[in-house]
Amino acid sequence: MAVGGSFLLRPSLLSAGALQGPLPRVNGKRLVYHLNALAEYGKNPQGGVSRVAYSDADRAAREYVIGLMGAAKLTVSIDAAANLIGRRPGIEPKLPPLVIGSHIDSVPEGGNYDGDVGSMAAIETAQALSESNYPLIHPLEVIIFSNEEGGTIGSHALAGELTEKQLSQRTNSGKTIAEGIRFLGGNPEHLGAVRRKRGDIAAYLDLHIEQGGLLEAQHANIGVVEGIVGISQWDVTIEGFANHAGTTPMNQRKDALLAAAKFIESVNQVVTGSQGRQVGTVGKIQAFPGAYNVIPGKVVLGLELRDLEASKIQTMFERIRTESERIAASTGTRFDFAQVNSIVPALTDKRIRQLIEDTAKEWGLSTKSMPSGAGHDAQEMARLGPAGMIFIPSVGGISHSPKEYSRSEDIENGANILLHTLMKQDRVQ
Amino acid sequence: MAVGGSFLLRPSLLSAGALQGPLPRVNGKRLVYHLNALAEYGKNPQGGVSRVAYSDADRAAREYVIGLMGAAKLTVSIDAAANLIGRRPGIEPKLPPLVIGSHIDSVPEGGNYDGDVGSMAAIETAQALSESNYPLIHPLEVIIFSNEEGGTIGSHALAGELTEKQLSQRTNSGKTIAEGIRFLGGNPEHLGAVRRKRGDIAAYLDLHIEQGGLLEAQHANIGVVEGIVGISQWDVTIEGFANHAGTTPMNQRKDALLAAAKFIESVNQVVTGSQGRQVGTVGKIQAFPGAYNVIPGKVVLGLELRDLEASKIQTMFERIRTESERIAASTGTRFDFAQVNSIVPALTDKRIRQLIEDTAKEWGLSTKSMPSGAGHDAQEMARLGPAGMIFIPSVGGISHSPKEYSRSEDIENGANILLHTLMKQDRVQ
Repeated sequence: MAVGGSFLLRPSLLSAGALQGPLPRVNGKRLVYHLNALAEYGKNPQGGVSRVAYSDADRAAREYVIGLMGAAKLTVSIDAAANLIGRRPGIEPKLPPLVIGSHIDSVPEGGNYDGDVGSMAAIETAQALSESNYPLIHPLEVIIFSNEEGGTIGSHALAGELTEKQLSQRTNSGKTIAEGIRFLGGNPEHLGAVRRKRGDIAAYLDLHIEQGGLLEAQHANIGVVEGIVGISQWDVTIEGFANHAGTTPMNQRKDALLAAAKFIESVNQVVTGSQGRQVGTVGKIQAFPGAYNVIPGKVVLGLELRDLEASKIQTMFERIRTESERIAASTGTRFDFAQVNSIVPALTDKRIRQLIEDTAKEWGLSTKSMPSGAGHDAQEMARLGPAGMIFIPSVGGISHSPKEYSRSEDIENGANILLHTLMKQDRVQ
Repeated sequence: MAVGGSFLLRPSLLSAGALQGPLPRVNGKRLVYHLNALAEYGKNPQGGVSRVAYSDADRAAREYVIGLMGAAKLTVSIDAAANLIGRRPGIEPKLPPLVIGSHIDSVPEGGNYDGDVGSMAAIETAQALSESNYPLIHPLEVIIFSNEEGGTIGSHALAGELTEKQLSQRTNSGKTIAEGIRFLGGNPEHLGAVRRKRGDIAAYLDLHIEQGGLLEAQHANIGVVEGIVGISQWDVTIEGFANHAGTTPMNQRKDALLAAAKFIESVNQVVTGSQGRQVGTVGKIQAFPGAYNVIPGKVVLGLELRDLEASKIQTMFERIRTESERIAASTGTRFDFAQVNSIVPALTDKRIRQLIEDTAKEWGLSTKSMPSGAGHDAQEMARLGPAGMIFIPSVGGISHSPKEYSRSEDIENGANILLHTLMKQDRVQ
């Protein structure tokens, strides 16, 4: 097995004879069996799961996962942020750990692959290494991050970014984040203890379903993630004038919803008007007062823009704002933009991307470089060390839905690429 | 005073000497004083009133109005539908009555002119006739209709159109319509008793604020209402596919809100695309699931079309439906239309329109023929006999708002035209 020319191999590994004997590979059947078993926790009658973070189903599923970690010979602990951590010693115990992982909490009425595939594959990776007695130079940590869907809370805590304000936020479980962390065995008063700094991890690797339809459309087996897109969100308020829908002639109206309609179209035109993989969405809208017979005097809508380059998000926003001024002038309305969220893009490590490419090639799998349009724990982990993400195809591009699905062979392929990229990364200096 | 050539004058009137002495005219100061006094009932701190039908404020205001009716020498009764009726005898007591009136209930956070002007002017008309000892040949009824804003309920009952289903509807007061009628002194079990049939009234006249900006824009003093527009309302459901707003490429989306935006624009284009005074409005919208980061999979919106001709409403709707098919095809969505309401147009009486024109001319006031874009009790009363409506200007075209306003001189002018049109109509055979 060759590693790309520019990477150095640790002499200690070559002399350790670790590469003798059959190379480890994951047990695909077992991996899929674990996925199906996990799907029982929070299962919905109509398919999929509602295993929202901090729910009873979440806690029960974590108990199941602790059992799997034990079977994979990992030493399990729960940190103060309620992350589940399974640790395997390395040949050089003082080196920072390699970290692999994902999450098992779901959105309400979610599917059985988002997070679950990466979590089960990370444990399977540890088990395959263990069964082959394959030694890693670095210690290995398998982390099942707490509450990914509610804002990558567990990895946020590792990066030292979790705020007091966030701790008191109410979650889909009905509990606040602080209550939820305690419910899962963490301690929200000792979050400082989990904080890691840059260099505290040797690398982070994450296998995940694509949650989009690009790999399937292009018949690619493996997505090599270039980075995780930045996300900017705004509340856009459009002020017109509410008036009687029967007595106000068409040319005397200041219809905030008509202005909103023109705005939604212009967002779509700006976003699709240039080359690239940027996306833009108006996902929520409210019209006031909201009656058949009253011209809407006010509309509030949610605008979201995503791209791998922060500058592209900014450029799109400026164009959209210019369009809004034109629409305001033609409809007698006024636009106001209030930014509610801004997550900066996180790039993955170039060398790790190359390792994933090389590994996929060795396994005869086709690859495609692509951004991750969704936020992930990798975004936080990239602050602490080099990070990489491996995508496998999502059938129909569907995610956050009971219809979410990835094929067993893709799951097995992805897990083997995770395992072997990890083995390569272990030997990179 | 000359009456249009084609109308017959009753010989009995000419011989009665009723036209001797000074002609009655309204007391404008008193009329505005009554309007201001009425504004105290349900007054809001920020201006205007919330005197919704069946509320305590509504009942208290009706007590005040009963007092005014008494002062105008009207004999007051409350019918089973809780309409307040003030009656004045005519020279020929067996003739069907002339009816004038309006309503004093308001929308939530409404103004002080919609309904109130017509109600106070109708009572002022009776008082002016009384003070001049001016005899009408017909009996006169001043009717303050119950719950106009909640669906012309009082006049609906007179026309025999109030259904059992409506009686159990919850209103803005918190009471059902049946409970509200009882609260105001009516009896929902005896609604049959109030029902009138065609010919039971000699004519109906209604003074109302325009609630639009046409009279003001054209510097006209008096609007001669050609009819009350028909109103058709639909719930439009747009089905797309809800998906992840980060991972779904722009060209793989079935965005129901983008389709809705195109639809809202096309409604505006169809309605403004032909000559005429038709109006069309999308006043309400909901997007599901309604989050920044989810492409809306479903939108439900409210479409309303109004015109004086039912056929024009139908033509517009057909065009809009054709547009929706084009939009559905281009966005990968599906449109469904469910009609929720249909009120047929009601034309006013041509002879009464001419009387209003003539009267305004005599008073040196300019007129404009126009449809009423809003629904009114006159719509129901037109089923029972010839009906006419007189509009006065609304400043800024604003209505259903604390900012609703009509000038005192316009109110006085309108009341005099009501009074003198009534006197002319009284003599028409």
